[in-house]
Amino acid sequence: MSSEKYQRGLKRLQELDPKAEESLAILQRIVPGLAEAIVEYEFADIYTRPGLDLKTRQLTTVASLTSLGYATPQLHVHIRYALNAGATRQEIFEVIIQTAPFVGFPAVINALKVAHEVCPPA
Amino acid sequence: MSSEKYQRGLKRLQELDPKAEESLAILQRIVPGLAEAIVEYEFADIYTRPGLDLKTRQLTTVASLTSLGYATPQLHVHIRYALNAGATRQEIFEVIIQTAPFVGFPAVINALKVAHEVCPPA
Amino acid sequence: MSSEKYQRGLKRLQELDPKAEESLAILQRIVPGLAEAIVEYEFADIYTRPGLDLKTRQLTTVASLTSLGYATPQLHVHIRYALNAGATRQEIFEVIIQTAPFVGFPAVINALKVAHEVCPPA
Amino acid sequence: MSSEKYQRGLKRLQELDPKAEESLAILQRIVPGLAEAIVEYEFADIYTRPGLDLKTRQLTTVASLTSLGYATPQLHVHIRYALNAGATRQEIFEVIIQTAPFVGFPAVINALKVAHEVCPPA
Amino acid sequence: MSSEKYQRGLKRLQELDPKAEESLAILQRIVPGLAEAIVEYEFADIYTRPGLDLKTRQLTTVASLTSLGYATPQLHVHIRYALNAGATRQEIFEVIIQTAPFVGFPAVINALKVAHEVCPPA
Amino acid sequence: MSSEKYQRGLKRLQELDPKAEESLAILQRIVPGLAEAIVEYEFADIYTRPGLDLKTRQLTTVASLTSLGYATPQLHVHIRYALNAGATRQEIFEVIIQTAPFVGFPAVINALKVAHEVCPPA
Repeated sequence: MSSEKYQRGLKRLQELDPKAEESLAILQRIVPGLAEAIVEYEFADIYTRPGLDLKTRQLTTVASLTSLGYATPQLHVHIRYALNAGATRQEIFEVIIQTAPFVGFPAVINALKVAHEVCPPA
Repeated sequence: MSSEKYQRGLKRLQELDPKAEESLAILQRIVPGLAEAIVEYEFADIYTRPGLDLKTRQLTTVASLTSLGYATPQLHVHIRYALNAGATRQEIFEVIIQTAPFVGFPAVINALKVAHEVCPPA
Repeated sequence: MSSEKYQRGLKRLQELDPKAEESLAILQRIVPGLAEAIVEYEFADIYTRPGLDLKTRQLTTVASLTSLGYATPQLHVHIRYALNAGATRQEIFEVIIQTAPFVGFPAVINALKVAHEVCPPA
Repeated sequence: MSSEKYQRGLKRLQELDPKAEESLAILQRIVPGLAEAIVEYEFADIYTRPGLDLKTRQLTTVASLTSLGYATPQLHVHIRYALNAGATRQEIFEVIIQTAPFVGFPAVINALKVAHEVCPPA
Repeated sequence: MSSEKYQRGLKRLQELDPKAEESLAILQRIVPGLAEAIVEYEFADIYTRPGLDLKTRQLTTVASLTSLGYATPQLHVHIRYALNAGATRQEIFEVIIQTAPFVGFPAVINALKVAHEVCPPA
Repeated sequence: MSSEKYQRGLKRLQELDPKAEESLAILQRIVPGLAEAIVEYEFADIYTRPGLDLKTRQLTTVASLTSLGYATPQLHVHIRYALNAGATRQEIFEVIIQTAPFVGFPAVINALKVAHEVCPPA
């Protein structure tokens, strides 16, 4: 697990989640090999591509997870990552609301509930 | 159709699509009232909310439509709007690719085909 | 293919589509057995249940197919069935539009295009 | 929040939910402006369109939410609204079951569980 | 409920779930008629078709339920059925992981959680 | 593009598609880097995992793409791959039909149309 690509992905993931290695170790025990694939594909191949800053990538992720409708556990994780990438509470709420005309209120309300839990009002 | 809210939505829509009134007139002939609802809800209530600039709203829309998988006709329209909102070809491609770990390759490949048609390489 | 259940399903299907047996014969040639399952399950088990008239069942079907987003070929068929079940053009359009707050505009616009083709304005 | 459109939407919503203003106030505190957009768009623009009675609109909503698969919190609310709009327990169950051939059993079983909670047998 | 088709479906279902009749009796009390439709359509019409052995049918079902994203209660049931049909723990995990490039990580992670509960490591 | 992982993925992909390098070159011209990510993640990380033979992996893929409903262009490709992996025409049709109780007829009929085009009756 020490290829250059893995190290590059892990470094990017740690910018979003300082405790990433703990979660990866748990996943590795449940499904050997999948944690490595996630780090190399999601966080090296995709998240380190040029042309879009990390905060905008993470807001894109929040929009994508909201649109799926069923991805509330993943929204918990990625809204936290979005804050770590420098997004404000307001930007996260606005990205979720912006999807409403395209995906409908149920997906949006489910995502807003998660956002309200992860980043409650000051 | 001349409420303050309608005028505010139409102005925002025209920033994205200078020929918006032609499309709205066609929709009005097919389904009376729906064009007005779209302008007032989508483009006034949602698109003029504070806290997120127009370009980021439009990149969010591209991520959301990509994630649905079946919204390729709407991607045609909204990728064009994204260019008009100041997004670059590269940013549009990167937003689509960023959704891949969350929604899978079929939705992403379908969206990339549309992006390649709307904004071919220079 | 002449069980009581098959006959009951076929009779119900023929209320919606007088030429049903032609379509079933084509499907039977492509996938033996599936046409029979569709007649017995969809049109006998489900469509002949008590408690909801045929027109309301068919409007429900239009709402359901609209919400899936990708089911435009099936909407072509079932909007025609809805007309045969006594639904008006206006009722079909309204059922499609009623889903908009829940499933978003892309699914609704795709369904309205089909409805406009199947039942153009007088 | 006192436009004619808002008042028209609120009146329609209150036919479905006599305690609507309480829920709207909670939403307003979490996401300023969204409650107003929901009342004006969903309940004025869409729910007060002519051509479909309120009970049929609400049965359409139940079919649409069932078809999404992930919208069980919203089904809780809208099945209650359907009862308030005059739908019977049997009609609600039949609308959910009618979607089965199109969306599959998982979405239907999830919706039936909600319906069984909201309107248990007499 | 004693047609030849019902008996054939019930026999197939009991290969997957020895206590099937208890679950069917509960469903019959909640929604009269639906249990019969499920046995005759799902387990007779579909599950007893020739050309694919029961274990492969059940792995297909796990892939299909994973891909929907929202069908975790049904995955609980059908992963148990897959074990009863002779699939190994590893085959079930691999089928879920195989869908990742097509449906994305959220659906896959949700399904892996269920699989980890139903068949924990030895 | 000559890492061990890339070579391993390419070899696996070429078992499914002898002309893979042509398609990868086209994709590389449209979106630099994505073809490499697909080969390394999809075809090395996932498709070369132990515990499931290539034919079963490919039938799983067909079930997954069918269930998405909108992935017909990808079904064209992957049904062809399934034949190359040793699946019979009948197995492919049966896998598609097996998803029907879970995802509904529209997704299944759309997939059967593709299967009928890619592998017509002898």
